[in-house]
Amino acid sequence: MAGLKLYGVALSPNVMRVLLCLYEKGLDFELVPVDLRAGEHKQEPFISLNPFGQVPALEDGDVKVFESRAITEYLCHAYPEKGPELVPSDKKALASMLTWKEVESGQYNDPASKLAFELIYKPMFFGGTPDEAVVADLEAKLAKVLDVYEAHLSKSKYLGGDEYSLADLNHLPGLHILLGTPSKKLIESRPHVSKWCTDVLARPAWAKVVALL
Amino acid sequence: MAGLKLYGVALSPNVMRVLLCLYEKGLDFELVPVDLRAGEHKQEPFISLNPFGQVPALEDGDVKVFESRAITEYLCHAYPEKGPELVPSDKKALASMLTWKEVESGQYNDPASKLAFELIYKPMFFGGTPDEAVVADLEAKLAKVLDVYEAHLSKSKYLGGDEYSLADLNHLPGLHILLGTPSKKLIESRPHVSKWCTDVLARPAWAKVVALL
Repeated sequence: MAGLKLYGVALSPNVMRVLLCLYEKGLDFELVPVDLRAGEHKQEPFISLNPFGQVPALEDGDVKVFESRAITEYLCHAYPEKGPELVPSDKKALASMLTWKEVESGQYNDPASKLAFELIYKPMFFGGTPDEAVVADLEAKLAKVLDVYEAHLSKSKYLGGDEYSLADLNHLPGLHILLGTPSKKLIESRPHVSKWCTDVLARPAWAKVVALL
Repeated sequence: MAGLKLYGVALSPNVMRVLLCLYEKGLDFELVPVDLRAGEHKQEPFISLNPFGQVPALEDGDVKVFESRAITEYLCHAYPEKGPELVPSDKKALASMLTWKEVESGQYNDPASKLAFELIYKPMFFGGTPDEAVVADLEAKLAKVLDVYEAHLSKSKYLGGDEYSLADLNHLPGLHILLGTPSKKLIESRPHVSKWCTDVLARPAWAKVVALL
């Protein structure tokens, strides 16, 4: 048997996303470390959990899930009675949550995660320095995306409507990382985006993720 | 009132994805054309449906959804009684469907859609020719992804398990387009991927999408 086992390391933004969801739902779990420097994620037994060799992966008894956004969605559907209603039952709220959940993965994540690579992970792990032209290009792309967020959040408290949902949750690791770089100006210069960030990052479940870092 | 209105043109792969879902579920809908050459998708009234100015967008009475993968998921949740069970209720099947749905958007789509741009859309709409080095690089990336599919589909009839699901459905436009290019060798050289392709592309709902092209 059983119980929830999350494989990965808390420093990975994709693992943070799942940790946040587990804390929001108040689910008991075990965090099983995967030694990325030793390449454990590219070998058995890990690649039987995720054949793409990427953290995180989750085991829930005999159920296996990988891809962080699949895991958070799985947890919402498998444990609907736990914690806040992150996947709304109301049709209109559901439509809005699903839309902005896709916006995160399809529009926001690409420039934001490439910026994080350039500004943080490249200097930290690969001995490089940020390429200023690349940073400027990515910032311009992310700014266009955030302009749409700014207009939307001027009319809506959260991305999916009046309530915090999976659409907001999936953003948190990326927002936290961006706010630790000079590109935080993209957030801070947009008042509604900035207010939303402050609000969602103040959630107790996020504080529990940060405590692991 | 109401009824389903899908905004876009059938030639767009992202619109095809939604059309396929509507046909699978046997839902009545109206396809409202958006003149992309005239830039209608970048202006009102369309940008009130999708502020990112991209087709498709869907109206379901007073419910609005955009992003093709959000729309297909919305239709599955809003009309669970219609057509095949594309979002499984069984926990293990659900986990698998959600995982491979994310694999499509997070791993498969990027190299596959860039290949389609290079080989089809660039020559067709932008007067360019495919860059052979770019094509080779994208094919190598897609081959790595399809190696994982090949191993998975040797043990599983569909991506999510024994039954066709939303995880398969979301792939169809991309597979159809890839099979119309020289990069189809990536599919044809992998017997289980090839068999799965033949199977899913034989669905009557897909034939209805192709009839619109």
